[in-house]
Amino acid sequence: MNFGTVAILGPGLIGGSLALALAEMKLANRLVIYGRSKSALEEVRASVPMAELTTDPGEAVKDADVVVLCLPIETMFKFICPIAHLFKPSALVTDVGSVKGVVDRDLAPLFAPNAHWIGSHPMAGSEKSGFAAARADLFKGATVVITPTAKTSLVAKNRAREFWETLGARVVSQTPNGHDIRVAQVSHLPHLLAAALVNHVQHAEPEALELVGGGFRDTTRIASGSPDLWAEILSANAEAVAHALQPFVKKLEDLEKHLRNPDKEELKQYLRAALKDAQDVRSRIPENRQKTS
Amino acid sequence: MNFGTVAILGPGLIGGSLALALAEMKLANRLVIYGRSKSALEEVRASVPMAELTTDPGEAVKDADVVVLCLPIETMFKFICPIAHLFKPSALVTDVGSVKGVVDRDLAPLFAPNAHWIGSHPMAGSEKSGFAAARADLFKGATVVITPTAKTSLVAKNRAREFWETLGARVVSQTPNGHDIRVAQVSHLPHLLAAALVNHVQHAEPEALELVGGGFRDTTRIASGSPDLWAEILSANAEAVAHALQPFVKKLEDLEKHLRNPDKEELKQYLRAALKDAQDVRSRIPENRQKTS
Repeated sequence: MNFGTVAILGPGLIGGSLALALAEMKLANRLVIYGRSKSALEEVRASVPMAELTTDPGEAVKDADVVVLCLPIETMFKFICPIAHLFKPSALVTDVGSVKGVVDRDLAPLFAPNAHWIGSHPMAGSEKSGFAAARADLFKGATVVITPTAKTSLVAKNRAREFWETLGARVVSQTPNGHDIRVAQVSHLPHLLAAALVNHVQHAEPEALELVGGGFRDTTRIASGSPDLWAEILSANAEAVAHALQPFVKKLEDLEKHLRNPDKEELKQYLRAALKDAQDVRSRIPENRQKTS
Repeated sequence: MNFGTVAILGPGLIGGSLALALAEMKLANRLVIYGRSKSALEEVRASVPMAELTTDPGEAVKDADVVVLCLPIETMFKFICPIAHLFKPSALVTDVGSVKGVVDRDLAPLFAPNAHWIGSHPMAGSEKSGFAAARADLFKGATVVITPTAKTSLVAKNRAREFWETLGARVVSQTPNGHDIRVAQVSHLPHLLAAALVNHVQHAEPEALELVGGGFRDTTRIASGSPDLWAEILSANAEAVAHALQPFVKKLEDLEKHLRNPDKEELKQYLRAALKDAQDVRSRIPENRQKTS
């Protein structure tokens, strides 16, 4: 398998890991990487010697057979619009943004009907960011959501799936809005909760932080993620996150009522059943998901 | 350092790890382990050949210089009361329960003024339980809270601290109620949230579980813990947990209002500030706490 000339715009955690993986697995004839500044690209030079580095995004995309946009969601349109005419009509263009509805709405018209556009979201982020955290094996066993719409070409769908699967990912296909509703539940809501929990404890009982064990550390790990990146993700998907949060808050209010039940035996039975349900569901989530297709 | 004859009542995750650590570090002349049944003790025999195993709790404690009660919180009093007169007056007696107010209230009168009683809580649990999950290094770098009261002897305080520190733990001293209020925040509330989040997603958007990444896995890992054990812990500390939960729910309601703010720029600024606060606090929590004293 060889993807020809691959351009990566933005060598952060995801873009940098892509570059490392493509180079290590020899999946590209040419690898062209666009970075904002020469100093940002300096880091890449040592780790990916085969890559051609440029600060000119038009230069990066003009010969590319595959272009992966690893740029902040909110700047994507403004950044790509002026260079959209430079893409090869046969190119596969995808992104790695964590919110898909708004990205697809903005970008699809820029590429139709020439380049083959489809959104992607590799669910392989962590609380770390930047090229320093990049790893060649980041996509191995990770879930990547591709988000075709009625306007997406079959070529885009097939090539995007093949691209991510070749990198070791498990590919799931969803509509952009379906994706946003679901990641609001399993990614954005947990992120908000982790941050809210840390802030709550710091405010309510700061000395308690002296006692944290593995449970608190695990539960709040994602609260160490980049505030800028996450403020952008959460505000871009705010409606879906609010929609996910509302019934969750109701559930917690209900839980609080149960905790105040003076009948401890009744309380214990209630908790046992709720915890058992959670354990059952949790046990069906693989700790390290393997490639399944 | 040698603790003489050490008795461990209940060789589960904590009791089993204690047995493994004491044997490996040669910290006991004799190690006597009480288990409910011969079959429960069979597992221990192979891993801790030096241990004397018994299903008679009176037999286990009668010559012991140190007794560690690794029993369910709710059965502790009923279990210990009939054998309390068998303890050596010079013995250090402690437990490893996750809730301390109720345990201290029940057990302290049984030992005063003879054996030296003090509560302990090694914050070294995980989502796993039972002897099969026990590890000799479980206490290395872990935080152990000891919970002296005005009635606790200096001997009990000093020996308990020495005991846990020799096993590699960082020892923190709190009142039983102070402990319960703080662990409600950093252990019990996170546990409830993890379980509630799993149940919420399963109920609201089960297909979303197909998309879980590392963030969700970390955030909900503790929801895999034993429902029986945790129902007991949470109901034993229900008042403090409800007290911790109430303002947290208010915080989430406030967050939901912000998420519905149509001014995205204002929302993003709000989120960025909240996430930055959480990141700052989180960055002061060591990933693997080392022994500090």
